Amino acid sequence: MNTFGNIFKLTSFGESHGAAIGGVIDGMPAGIEIDVDFVQQELNRRRPGQSSIVTPRKEGDRVEFLSGIYDGKSTGASIGFVVYNANQHSSDYDNIKDLYRPSHADYTYTQKYGIRDHRGGGRSSARETISRCVAGALAKLALRKLNVEILAYTSQVGNVYLDGVYSDYDLSAIEDNAVRCPDASVAVQMEKLIKEVQSDGDTIGGVISCVIKNTPVGIGEPVFGKLHAALGAAMLGINAAKGFEYGMGFAGVGRRGSEMCDNFINSDGKIKTTSNYSGGIQGGISNGEDIFFRVAFKPVATLLRDVKTVDKDGNEVVLKAKGRHDPCVLPRAVPIVDAMAAMVILDYVLINKTTCI
Amino acid sequence: MNTFGNIFKLTSFGESHGAAIGGVIDGMPAGIEIDVDFVQQELNRRRPGQSSIVTPRKEGDRVEFLSGIYDGKSTGASIGFVVYNANQHSSDYDNIKDLYRPSHADYTYTQKYGIRDHRGGGRSSARETISRCVAGALAKLALRKLNVEILAYTSQVGNVYLDGVYSDYDLSAIEDNAVRCPDASVAVQMEKLIKEVQSDGDTIGGVISCVIKNTPVGIGEPVFGKLHAALGAAMLGINAAKGFEYGMGFAGVGRRGSEMCDNFINSDGKIKTTSNYSGGIQGGISNGEDIFFRVAFKPVATLLRDVKTVDKDGNEVVLKAKGRHDPCVLPRAVPIVDAMAAMVILDYVLINKTTCI
Amino acid sequence: MNTFGNIFKLTSFGESHGAAIGGVIDGMPAGIEIDVDFVQQELNRRRPGQSSIVTPRKEGDRVEFLSGIYDGKSTGASIGFVVYNANQHSSDYDNIKDLYRPSHADYTYTQKYGIRDHRGGGRSSARETISRCVAGALAKLALRKLNVEILAYTSQVGNVYLDGVYSDYDLSAIEDNAVRCPDASVAVQMEKLIKEVQSDGDTIGGVISCVIKNTPVGIGEPVFGKLHAALGAAMLGINAAKGFEYGMGFAGVGRRGSEMCDNFINSDGKIKTTSNYSGGIQGGISNGEDIFFRVAFKPVATLLRDVKTVDKDGNEVVLKAKGRHDPCVLPRAVPIVDAMAAMVILDYVLINKTTCI
Amino acid sequence: MNTFGNIFKLTSFGESHGAAIGGVIDGMPAGIEIDVDFVQQELNRRRPGQSSIVTPRKEGDRVEFLSGIYDGKSTGASIGFVVYNANQHSSDYDNIKDLYRPSHADYTYTQKYGIRDHRGGGRSSARETISRCVAGALAKLALRKLNVEILAYTSQVGNVYLDGVYSDYDLSAIEDNAVRCPDASVAVQMEKLIKEVQSDGDTIGGVISCVIKNTPVGIGEPVFGKLHAALGAAMLGINAAKGFEYGMGFAGVGRRGSEMCDNFINSDGKIKTTSNYSGGIQGGISNGEDIFFRVAFKPVATLLRDVKTVDKDGNEVVLKAKGRHDPCVLPRAVPIVDAMAAMVILDYVLINKTTCI
Repeated sequence: MNTFGNIFKLTSFGESHGAAIGGVIDGMPAGIEIDVDFVQQELNRRRPGQSSIVTPRKEGDRVEFLSGIYDGKSTGASIGFVVYNANQHSSDYDNIKDLYRPSHADYTYTQKYGIRDHRGGGRSSARETISRCVAGALAKLALRKLNVEILAYTSQVGNVYLDGVYSDYDLSAIEDNAVRCPDASVAVQMEKLIKEVQSDGDTIGGVISCVIKNTPVGIGEPVFGKLHAALGAAMLGINAAKGFEYGMGFAGVGRRGSEMCDNFINSDGKIKTTSNYSGGIQGGISNGEDIFFRVAFKPVATLLRDVKTVDKDGNEVVLKAKGRHDPCVLPRAVPIVDAMAAMVILDYVLINKTTCI
Repeated sequence: MNTFGNIFKLTSFGESHGAAIGGVIDGMPAGIEIDVDFVQQELNRRRPGQSSIVTPRKEGDRVEFLSGIYDGKSTGASIGFVVYNANQHSSDYDNIKDLYRPSHADYTYTQKYGIRDHRGGGRSSARETISRCVAGALAKLALRKLNVEILAYTSQVGNVYLDGVYSDYDLSAIEDNAVRCPDASVAVQMEKLIKEVQSDGDTIGGVISCVIKNTPVGIGEPVFGKLHAALGAAMLGINAAKGFEYGMGFAGVGRRGSEMCDNFINSDGKIKTTSNYSGGIQGGISNGEDIFFRVAFKPVATLLRDVKTVDKDGNEVVLKAKGRHDPCVLPRAVPIVDAMAAMVILDYVLINKTTCI
Repeated sequence: MNTFGNIFKLTSFGESHGAAIGGVIDGMPAGIEIDVDFVQQELNRRRPGQSSIVTPRKEGDRVEFLSGIYDGKSTGASIGFVVYNANQHSSDYDNIKDLYRPSHADYTYTQKYGIRDHRGGGRSSARETISRCVAGALAKLALRKLNVEILAYTSQVGNVYLDGVYSDYDLSAIEDNAVRCPDASVAVQMEKLIKEVQSDGDTIGGVISCVIKNTPVGIGEPVFGKLHAALGAAMLGINAAKGFEYGMGFAGVGRRGSEMCDNFINSDGKIKTTSNYSGGIQGGISNGEDIFFRVAFKPVATLLRDVKTVDKDGNEVVLKAKGRHDPCVLPRAVPIVDAMAAMVILDYVLINKTTCI
Repeated sequence: MNTFGNIFKLTSFGESHGAAIGGVIDGMPAGIEIDVDFVQQELNRRRPGQSSIVTPRKEGDRVEFLSGIYDGKSTGASIGFVVYNANQHSSDYDNIKDLYRPSHADYTYTQKYGIRDHRGGGRSSARETISRCVAGALAKLALRKLNVEILAYTSQVGNVYLDGVYSDYDLSAIEDNAVRCPDASVAVQMEKLIKEVQSDGDTIGGVISCVIKNTPVGIGEPVFGKLHAALGAAMLGINAAKGFEYGMGFAGVGRRGSEMCDNFINSDGKIKTTSNYSGGIQGGISNGEDIFFRVAFKPVATLLRDVKTVDKDGNEVVLKAKGRHDPCVLPRAVPIVDAMAAMVILDYVLINKTTCI
């Protein structure tokens, strides 16, 4: 199950310490100008070593497109791409070869497959998200035709959080700080907290919020293809994600229906709602209002502390702290969230074209 | 997109006020004894009119199996089933024929398809979940072979909630009260609140929690088929669901990694974890510990109050209160949550059989 | 695997002697007028007992639509339908309960599933094609918008065959005789042959030819979704089909490339080909010329003669002649061939809408 | 639609004159030893320049695996692979940039996508089959565990053909001659014919036959997943394929049922058939006898002669003979046929594991 999507599809491959990460994008609309620099830029956003609050590992990941583009445009053929792995210190992982890191996928992979590529976590490594960035960037290029805009940002790190909603902030400022939070002063607190947990050899979780503007009305399928269910599955498939909510989400469970009624009005000949508790989706289908959702991320499982665990033979052992890891996944997960959102929206825009003949 | 699942698949059909609700179940393992009474019982659990806190509409839904069962056992062929609709008061809905109920799917369906079956909400009606109950019941019958147990319950209604975790309660007591809450005294408060909002012509949301016991180790697929992402998509596809979280979920974002480390131990020759912050899933794959998750439901959108809206021509109108509706969707959504969970687990158990040759 | 199609999808169910045959059609374009009489008529075309050359079994199959249609039009929701089985003489099949009929699916089903509904062949019965007729009829209704015309006919029975190509015949005459052959005098010979083999307690095979007119240019997907591969899979999935060829097919293997070159010309501003050896498909994609193909059907396996076989315990036994069966499947397979063709063309027309954004 | 398969899946990419051909293989069973030399050998079988009867183009295609293999074994993760293109003379194709070669995909691609990579036929080039060889080779490695053996060979070129059935020949001799025909003297005639048409600047078609031994009983799915329909779709998706038949195929249409009855017998406690007119598949499911089928290939469309056609503006032009092309596709299509067959069999073996729980 390494394919994501229905019409616009990414099939991905690659392990942390294998030869390369890459994939095949199928269903890219034909005739779209492929701005390779933009794609590379998007990929750079997830790169380690960007700032003092992320892992200092150097991964100069460069995307190479191998097919499906001719004369600067998508041809409708499948688009193969590859990002070669470099800077591999596979021997760094010799110590975990035969043991199971707590709260990691080592044990479950081994039980499932009877074999495991332990180097850097193998297929369970977050390097897998490289493919998602590339595919998401292509989706964004296609969505430009519809003016769809997708903006994800860090809204919470540990107990430091933005107390406003997305419209309270200048979302053009997301990239202005290392933590990708649109409020500069809160960003400072978040960075401070991250450095603090880092110096403790510890890690911390948080929340990424995302808003999607200008989704056409009518996107999403009833019953099993609800737009928010597709977005939810996309987000929950990102490493370390533990929760998803849209519109009022969990906060809405304490409210009464009369407090969450999005009344329709006629706004200069256009049907709009007076409020948007629904989060832009009603009955699983976009209503033209802004779509917004939140994704919970757990703290990174790898600690710079000794932890107790067992080896493959069931012997109790101590895993010694080692390696270069992110103290907080949030800053680098922001581009993954918006990439996945772009893939879902483009996919469902294309599906929606089959509604009538 | 009326099909759910990969190997064990439900394809469903039916509108609230059409002739029938039903579906086709494909991929049911062969040779399973089909206890039709059990299936009917499961279906009865979602039936309206069970208690004073749900809609008094009478829907004596009876499932008829049309194929795929011979001599009391599943044959491996697809299983068609149908539940005829009765007690249809289609004219009750004449008043909404040309207008869009707020926070409902009327507007989005009309925009998407250019046509809409307005009677009782048509395809967007929660009667669609009948098919899910039937398929879920069959999945449970198959899962009996593995002793998988799925227990969903109401853990919050409005601001009344259980403050313990699932292991604090006697889950065999879920069916003992109308609200399906395993704590009798909290159940009383929940019912009281539901009646209160009902008498106000209002509605209220809540949270359903679910625990899955005895899932074999190794279920779930890496990358795009993570077990929790499949569960999330399943739950978010239920009418009125607004959020999903598993393991520590949103509550875990404020914690440090060191506070959420599920250390492995050797427990009498079996590898177990000392804690279960992960919620039984690591790297998208079950680790044998209990799986647990929570689903947020918004208050029902239909109020017994007049609400402002527009008609299809954009004229502002007032929708008069009318009809028989649930003040709170939670009690009747519990069997849907566990049905969907059963479908996911069976589907992924079957997928897992293809891992090796 | 009871689902056919990608966007326009039929999921079918039903055994010969179960309660009903039916299915769910998903992806029917919204807003199409559903002429139920036309659908019933199409279904009548496959009905037994139409003439002296088909089985005299009476199957007064009537289709009932259960959803997805409102106000005479498709709503975009899934369309459930059912055709109840009648005239079941299940006890007629008691003699085959424990033995394997030669050249039937009895042995393979039993080995695969460990259980078998032997009554009338169960799921392997040609009654399963009822669902295909219904879905095909709906596809034809949608294709009317594009003027696509699909014409299948019997072109060979045993060694009696049409020696011309489709354009040599008046295809409006297909329904004029029981064998569904557009040449009246050849039809007479075919019927004569069928009656002859019937009186011998024997059966005979043949070929169905099909032409599709007015397919828009550009339908079909490169590589694994070639239009002819989809048509081939559709046809080979019909009971008793043993071969498929399109364009010049097997006859073209003896020719040189220079004898099969479809030169392009400018015909009043429209690009056309001077010949159509390709059969209307080039590189897997329709070029606007007529699509034509042929399907080989084997003689029906059920003979009105005693045949040697084994029972489930491996004992050698004699199967006594019994029952009411077609001596030749061709006449009643014609409507299945055009139904399947209609489903494929509609499906690929819809897929093609996703090529560009 | 660049993905083939259900559980064992190939997603492919690549144009003739792009950077590379490659793909992602998903669903490879875990723990299989990956003999990379064997894969390369299989790839070499389709390489041009092997003999005097195929194109002298040099394509030293080398496969590089990028993921999914660790310690010489498949890990269960997706397997990315790439074969870089070399020896590209893109300017060789400048003359066809704006015109449509007859019986090629130039016109249909342009109409479908509005853009076309004309260099060497782009995505419609037979170089695309490189990916199929690689995936087929991996499938063969997995099938070794079941002793499944797949043997394809050239049985007809133009009007030169083998007049026996597969069991009349020593199939271990297939690779002994350039044309891949197991009868040495017929092979000589075939080669002679190919050289003759080549010297005429012409091309010729033919038939490839294939036999599959040791398929376990029970492989294949009823109704829409019949094993022969899957094999047919696989074969018809190969460039230049125009027909498919299995068992008695088209030759069986002239026979009576009594002449094609595969009686079951008890052969030393094992149920076998006395004949195999069915071709090893009954009701879409393997019965354990040999599976055999035939695939028709048209003559290559590219002639070394001037041909009339039109350009994209509809002007009539003459396409001058040019380039290095195969006079007959058969010898190099043999490895593609068996690769596709291997992929189908493995896929359906894996699907079959989900039949029971």
